[in-house]
Amino acid sequence: MTDRYTKAVNSGFTQTLAKKLGLPRPAVLRRYRAGDSLTVGPVLVVSDGASKADADAIAQTLLGWDLDVRREPTDDVRWGAVVLVLTEATAPTDASEAVLATGSVLRRLAGNGRVVTVSRAPADGDSPALSATRHGVDGFLRSVAKELRGGATGNGVVLTDDVAVDDPSVLGTLRFFLGAKSAYVDGQLLRVGPTADGVPAADAPEPATDRPLTGQVAVVTGAARGIGAAIARTLHRDGATVVCVDVPAAGEALAATANAVGGTALQLDVTAEDAGERILAHARERHGRLDVVVHNAGITRDKLLANMKPGQWDAVIAVNLAAQLRINAALLEAGLEGLRIVSLASTSGIAGNKGQTNYAFSKAGVIGHTRATAGLLAARGGTANAVAPGFIETEMTSRIPFATREVARRIPSLAQGGQPVDVAEAIAFLASPAAAGVNGQVLRVCGQHLVGQ
Amino acid sequence: MTDRYTKAVNSGFTQTLAKKLGLPRPAVLRRYRAGDSLTVGPVLVVSDGASKADADAIAQTLLGWDLDVRREPTDDVRWGAVVLVLTEATAPTDASEAVLATGSVLRRLAGNGRVVTVSRAPADGDSPALSATRHGVDGFLRSVAKELRGGATGNGVVLTDDVAVDDPSVLGTLRFFLGAKSAYVDGQLLRVGPTADGVPAADAPEPATDRPLTGQVAVVTGAARGIGAAIARTLHRDGATVVCVDVPAAGEALAATANAVGGTALQLDVTAEDAGERILAHARERHGRLDVVVHNAGITRDKLLANMKPGQWDAVIAVNLAAQLRINAALLEAGLEGLRIVSLASTSGIAGNKGQTNYAFSKAGVIGHTRATAGLLAARGGTANAVAPGFIETEMTSRIPFATREVARRIPSLAQGGQPVDVAEAIAFLASPAAAGVNGQVLRVCGQHLVGQ
Repeated sequence: MTDRYTKAVNSGFTQTLAKKLGLPRPAVLRRYRAGDSLTVGPVLVVSDGASKADADAIAQTLLGWDLDVRREPTDDVRWGAVVLVLTEATAPTDASEAVLATGSVLRRLAGNGRVVTVSRAPADGDSPALSATRHGVDGFLRSVAKELRGGATGNGVVLTDDVAVDDPSVLGTLRFFLGAKSAYVDGQLLRVGPTADGVPAADAPEPATDRPLTGQVAVVTGAARGIGAAIARTLHRDGATVVCVDVPAAGEALAATANAVGGTALQLDVTAEDAGERILAHARERHGRLDVVVHNAGITRDKLLANMKPGQWDAVIAVNLAAQLRINAALLEAGLEGLRIVSLASTSGIAGNKGQTNYAFSKAGVIGHTRATAGLLAARGGTANAVAPGFIETEMTSRIPFATREVARRIPSLAQGGQPVDVAEAIAFLASPAAAGVNGQVLRVCGQHLVGQ
Repeated sequence: MTDRYTKAVNSGFTQTLAKKLGLPRPAVLRRYRAGDSLTVGPVLVVSDGASKADADAIAQTLLGWDLDVRREPTDDVRWGAVVLVLTEATAPTDASEAVLATGSVLRRLAGNGRVVTVSRAPADGDSPALSATRHGVDGFLRSVAKELRGGATGNGVVLTDDVAVDDPSVLGTLRFFLGAKSAYVDGQLLRVGPTADGVPAADAPEPATDRPLTGQVAVVTGAARGIGAAIARTLHRDGATVVCVDVPAAGEALAATANAVGGTALQLDVTAEDAGERILAHARERHGRLDVVVHNAGITRDKLLANMKPGQWDAVIAVNLAAQLRINAALLEAGLEGLRIVSLASTSGIAGNKGQTNYAFSKAGVIGHTRATAGLLAARGGTANAVAPGFIETEMTSRIPFATREVARRIPSLAQGGQPVDVAEAIAFLASPAAAGVNGQVLRVCGQHLVGQ
C-alpha cells in the first residue's frame, strides 16, 4: 500500500512532471512479505578496533540468517545494509575509521537499504570521554539517516552495559531494523537491556521465527478500523489469537475485523470502570490466557488552548490516558506472567503540537506510565513499551485539507506518510519474544519526522 | 538587535505588503535592558488543588520581586505571564482546572508574555499515574508554546523530588523564564535539583541580583567574534572578569573583544595538549582565580557522509569535542571549588542534521561529556551544563544562501533566528549562583525550532 501522491510521482508521465516541478519524489518503501529476503543485498559489517570481536559475533549471526556478509567495503556490489559496531569504543576519536568506511559505501547503498549502528547506552559512572563517545553515536546516526535516499533508513541498537551482542533481544532488534518490517522507522535508537526476570535468555526463541506469537492471546483496543485493525491483522499473522475491542457504536466494523483475523470481538468502552476486569475475563474465558495488550484506542479533540472547553480537555485525558491507567492497574493486580503491554503514544506527545495541548498531555502521559509500568512488569517477566507514530495515512488523516496533508507528508526524511501496517509491525515486534530485553522504551514510527528527535 | 527581515515586515509599508503576501511576521522580541521591569504585565499564578501551598509560596516570591501578582483569571488586564503550578498533582485529571484557567487568559496575554509551568521531574519509583501526570506536563507545555504569538514563550521549571519551590535555584530559573533574558528560549523544560554539595542554599544570593558574577573570573573560548564575543560581553555585564581565548589568527579581533570587556586576551589553540593547563595558569596568574569556563570554540566542516574526507571528520571531532574533554580533564585535576562549565552543543547534536554527521557526533558528544562531568563537579560544588543553539544570526549564518536562510529562520515557533546575545544570556544564567541546582542539563536556545524537542 502506497499513498496516491507517492504512486503518482513515481509513475511514468507524472514522474517527469513531478521532477520538472521540483516536487519531492518519495521512494516506494519495501514492506514485509513472507518469504522475501531480509535485506535487499549484501551486508557490510564494520567496527572500530576494540569492537572487532563484537562485530565478528554479529557477522556470524547474520551468516546464520543466510545473508551475504562482507567485512570490507568494496565498489563491486550494491549494498543492502551497513552494520556499524561501536560497542567498545571509549574515546570520540575511536569511531573515525569505521564511520568513514560506512560513508565510503553509501553511494552504493541500494534503495530500501539499511544503516544500523550497534553501540552502548550512556550509563551513570561513564567517564566524560566514554559518555561523549556513546552520545556521539546518537548525533551521528540521526544525521546519517537524514542523508539516505531511496527509502533507505538508519537506526541504532543501543545496548546497556549488562547485555552482550549475542543476546537474543539485541539480535532481534538488529533483525527488525535490517528488515522490511521497520520500513517507516527511521533515525531512531532503541535501547536493549537484559531480559526481564523469569525469561532466561536460553529459553528465548530464535528471532528469525516467522510466527513468534503462536499460542499467545493478544487484546487490541480500538481495533474496528485504521491502525487498530492493522495491528489485529499483524498480530494474527504472527500467530496470536486476537481479541478485538472497540465501542458498541463500531460494532459492525469490529465484528468484521474480528472475523477477518479469526479472533473474537469485545464491545467495550475503555473508559468503563471495570474495563480491565472485563478484558481479562473475556480473554481468559474465551481463550484461556492473556499475553499481549495493545492500548490503541484514542481520540482527538483539537482546539487551541485559548478556545478549549472543559469537555474537550477531559474527554481526551479520559480516553487516551486515564483508561489505560485503569486497565493496566487491573492487569497488574491480576499478576499475569510475561505480560506485554504496548501503548500508542504520538510524536505530538514528544515534541508538542499546536492545537493539541490535551492530546499531547495524554500522549506524553502514556510515555510516562509506560516507563513506570515497565519496572512493575519486569518482576514477572513482562514489558511495557510505547510506539509513537508520526503522520500515518488513515481515514482520519484523509480528512485533513489537501495542502496541510501534503506538507505533513513531505516533512519526514522519508518524505511520505506511513501506513497503518508500519505502526502494527513495530507493535508486533515489541510484543514478540525477540523484544524481551526492550522495556520502558518509546519507538517512533515516523519516517524521521522533523519534530522531536 | 533584530534581523533585517523581521525589521522590514514589521515596518509600516512593508508590513502591509508582507501581510498581503502571507509572509510570516515574526514579533520583535523584548530583550533584557537594565532597569526594565521583569515582565510586561501582571502575573497570574494558578495551580491544581494539591499544589496550592506551592503556588502561594511562588506568588509571595513574585510579590517580593515587585510584580503585580493575581490569583484569579480576569478579563480586565493584559497579562504579562501565567505561572501554572502542578508540583503536587498526582493524577492526570488533577491538572484540568488549572490548565483551563491558563487557557482562559491566553487571548489577553501581552506580546512577549510568558507561560511558565512549575512541576516535578519523573523519578524512579513513581506510580504509573504519577509518572503519567509528570510527563503529561511536558507534552502540554511544548504544545502551548507552539500556540503563543507576539513573541510570547512557554517554558517549564521541573523540580526533582528533593527540592522545594522556594529553593533559590527554582526561583532563579523561574525568574530567567519570566524575564527578557530568555527571549529566544521557547518550549523548553529545565530540571532543577538540589544545590551541589558545598553550596548551602542559605549562602546562595538573591536571584534578583543584577551583577551575579561580581568578583568571579570567567574564560570564554572562541571569544574573538560572534557568539563568543557576545558571551564575553554578557558575562562582563554580569560582573565577571573575562579571559577571552581564541586562535592566534584571530588575534586582532580577540584583543578588541578583550579590551571592550576590560578583560584579558589569551591566544591559544584549544586543541593544544596543554590548553587546559595554560588557561588555568593564565586565569590564576593574571586574575588570581577561575570560576567559569565557557567552551564556545567550534568549527563546521559540512559534507554528506558519502563525500566526507578523514580530515573533515577528524578536525571537527578534535576542535569541538576532544579539546573540551582534554581541557576539562585538566580543570578537574586542579580540583577547583564551585567551578561552572558551560559548553556549546547544538540542535544538530540532538536531532541530527543532513551534511553534519561529524558536527552532530561532536555536539551530541558535548551533551554526553556534560552529563558525566556534572557528577564529578558536583562533589566540589560545581556544575556542568550545555546550551544548544538553534538558528542564530551570525556572520557565519549570513553566508548561507538567502532562501535556505529564510526557511531556517521561519521554522521555529518564534518564526525568526536568534541573536548571539540570546545564547549568551542562557550561558550567563547557567554560570550564575542562581543556577546552582541546574547540573548536567541541556538548555536549548532555539525559539522552539521544530527539530528535536
